[in-house]
Amino acid sequence: MLIVQKFGGSSVANVERLFNVADRIAATYRDGHKVVVVVSAQGDTTDDLIAKAHEISDRPSRREMDMLMATGEQQSMALLTMALQQRGLPAVSLTGWQAGISTSSAHTAARVRKVNPQRISHELEKNNIVVVAGFQGYSKQDDITTLGRGGSDTTAVALAAGLSAELCEIYTDVDGVYTADPRIVKKARKLDEISYDEMLELASLGAKVLHSRSVELAKKYSVNLVVRSSLTDAPGTYVKEVGSMENVLVSGVALDKNVARVTIVGVKDEPGVAHRVFSLLSKRSISVDIIIQSIGSANSKDIMFTVERSSEREVLDILEENRRHLHYDHITSDNSMCKLSIVGAGMVSTPGVATTMFEALSDTNVNIGAISTSEVKISVLIDEKDADKAYNAVHDVFVDTNIQFRN
Amino acid sequence: MLIVQKFGGSSVANVERLFNVADRIAATYRDGHKVVVVVSAQGDTTDDLIAKAHEISDRPSRREMDMLMATGEQQSMALLTMALQQRGLPAVSLTGWQAGISTSSAHTAARVRKVNPQRISHELEKNNIVVVAGFQGYSKQDDITTLGRGGSDTTAVALAAGLSAELCEIYTDVDGVYTADPRIVKKARKLDEISYDEMLELASLGAKVLHSRSVELAKKYSVNLVVRSSLTDAPGTYVKEVGSMENVLVSGVALDKNVARVTIVGVKDEPGVAHRVFSLLSKRSISVDIIIQSIGSANSKDIMFTVERSSEREVLDILEENRRHLHYDHITSDNSMCKLSIVGAGMVSTPGVATTMFEALSDTNVNIGAISTSEVKISVLIDEKDADKAYNAVHDVFVDTNIQFRN
Repeated sequence: MLIVQKFGGSSVANVERLFNVADRIAATYRDGHKVVVVVSAQGDTTDDLIAKAHEISDRPSRREMDMLMATGEQQSMALLTMALQQRGLPAVSLTGWQAGISTSSAHTAARVRKVNPQRISHELEKNNIVVVAGFQGYSKQDDITTLGRGGSDTTAVALAAGLSAELCEIYTDVDGVYTADPRIVKKARKLDEISYDEMLELASLGAKVLHSRSVELAKKYSVNLVVRSSLTDAPGTYVKEVGSMENVLVSGVALDKNVARVTIVGVKDEPGVAHRVFSLLSKRSISVDIIIQSIGSANSKDIMFTVERSSEREVLDILEENRRHLHYDHITSDNSMCKLSIVGAGMVSTPGVATTMFEALSDTNVNIGAISTSEVKISVLIDEKDADKAYNAVHDVFVDTNIQFRN
Repeated sequence: MLIVQKFGGSSVANVERLFNVADRIAATYRDGHKVVVVVSAQGDTTDDLIAKAHEISDRPSRREMDMLMATGEQQSMALLTMALQQRGLPAVSLTGWQAGISTSSAHTAARVRKVNPQRISHELEKNNIVVVAGFQGYSKQDDITTLGRGGSDTTAVALAAGLSAELCEIYTDVDGVYTADPRIVKKARKLDEISYDEMLELASLGAKVLHSRSVELAKKYSVNLVVRSSLTDAPGTYVKEVGSMENVLVSGVALDKNVARVTIVGVKDEPGVAHRVFSLLSKRSISVDIIIQSIGSANSKDIMFTVERSSEREVLDILEENRRHLHYDHITSDNSMCKLSIVGAGMVSTPGVATTMFEALSDTNVNIGAISTSEVKISVLIDEKDADKAYNAVHDVFVDTNIQFRN
């Protein structure tokens, strides 16, 4: 069968690990499968490249950032292909444009539009192992684009969908999806399976095990996805359409430490204000997460929203540049916030879930900065200094009450 | 007018130098010219990438080497473009394939076949400074290729020809073409101009100031070429069709330290032997330089040839693999040889030039390992330990005799 295997940056960080990955790929290939490999940049390469750009400019152009960052994956895929060839296997590497990963033109945050699999299919027919650069694609203008941090997962799922692969294996340095981050929460448990929707919430809430766009694509194209460790043979966690949702309440607790909160204080209380603010941000491909609008003093209101910390400076600049256009009083911002979320199907319709969460936070003396809920999650903003104790407290209260975790 | 400017790796080795180069480009652009910039990888990047590959494999595949090495120029062009933008200039970077540099499929030693300048022209029309990755192109198969060490010069000249540029400026860390390497030969003098043919011989003989393929292309398409320093405003050396060749004998002395000598001892004295040997090497894109065939013992002969030192191991492997097919007695090799050459139009037809060279070597007690001559050059192989004294001796004897240097 055709299997897509994705290896993250830490799995290929040095020569020893490259050969370890090569041996794992070799085992799959020698079992008679066709293999497409997606690989991230080695170790800290992407961060190093970003640092290089920032030596030159505070706000380097996004197009040139993509040009620069895309080299990280191009290097790791060439090195991995050499390691496969050194093991006697036929292999060939392909960049994003060679692999036919067509994307939108939103540099540094492009979305996969289409996969043109001709070249990959041709290489597979020649019995090659095909090693594809993760994280990158090309736009209609033939410019190199990247998919945002974690985008290699999306590359893998998009290829699995485009090639109708039987399985998409995401290899990482943990052995599956946990009810919480096991490095912080001692009682965290590994899940054997999780639904697309729950995984999507966990991913978008900061559980770094999968890029959320990859889960969206997997759901849309019904890709069989498994998250496994590249270091052990443990079976991992399957992400799929789960049939029975009975007795499933909380599938996990997620902590996102990469949150900045921006508040626009004193905008006019009139129609179109929110649209003006968020269209300015979306034009620059800045993702906004929680949005809360509150009534301020007479004839004015406040708009609070959260973005990734790396976007904070750009957001403040955009708001400052458009001060006259937006008519606000002033801006405040805080980039030491975290978002703590619980995820589970049918949660909101079950009485007591939110109360249990808030009680756990109150008992641990953690102040809640904002609350946001959806059908399958409840998120709160808290101060970074409270993050780890709040994370444990909320996880433990669901383990210890009659509200069940999956499995 | 349209000017192509090429900057080598040392000119862009760090942030300060990147801005220095950006300022030079800016001055040309602000004078009203259209500018296409060709840039090499920063500093030792290419060597570092080669070292990484060799940690994985003694003989990494050439296709994957190209994939790996091409990232060096992609990084430097993105960084230079950011520096230009930081200076307030409109600029855009293009990889080899984006810039339309179509090449042969001979990985690591590809030849430019054609330049498709649509994208560059389009960017120039938008008043952009266009920064192109040197050294790289793409093959018919849409694979990434590289042009061999120094290939960025060739990229610059090919673009100048393809875009009908008025001038192609090669910026380097010396201020022009010298009669010999001024770091080794104290009496070396800078030339104001040199003909394509003489430059070609000097380049192919190891004067590292220009890649020989670039001079071939410049001659073929009559590209106005100038070699200048990126650190000073000195006028440099113009390479062009020089009218009068009278009174010009020796235009330069060149020393190539990158020579390995391989001797196949005891091949059968029958037709087709040389063809069999050298077709095996050319299939692997290994460049052979001097070839000398000599009569050995009865019914056998010896074939000696030189290659770049980096090719020695591969050549020995190829000869060993084909031992039964080639029927030789044994192989010897020596990778501590140098080639010392004198170049000048009409040299061979002038009595006494070769004698003067050999006499200078004899007086300095330097042993000659082989001699090769053409219409415009005389080359000798000598031992590496004698290289510098031989280089000075030969240069000085032509300065001190009535056989004139150009200018």
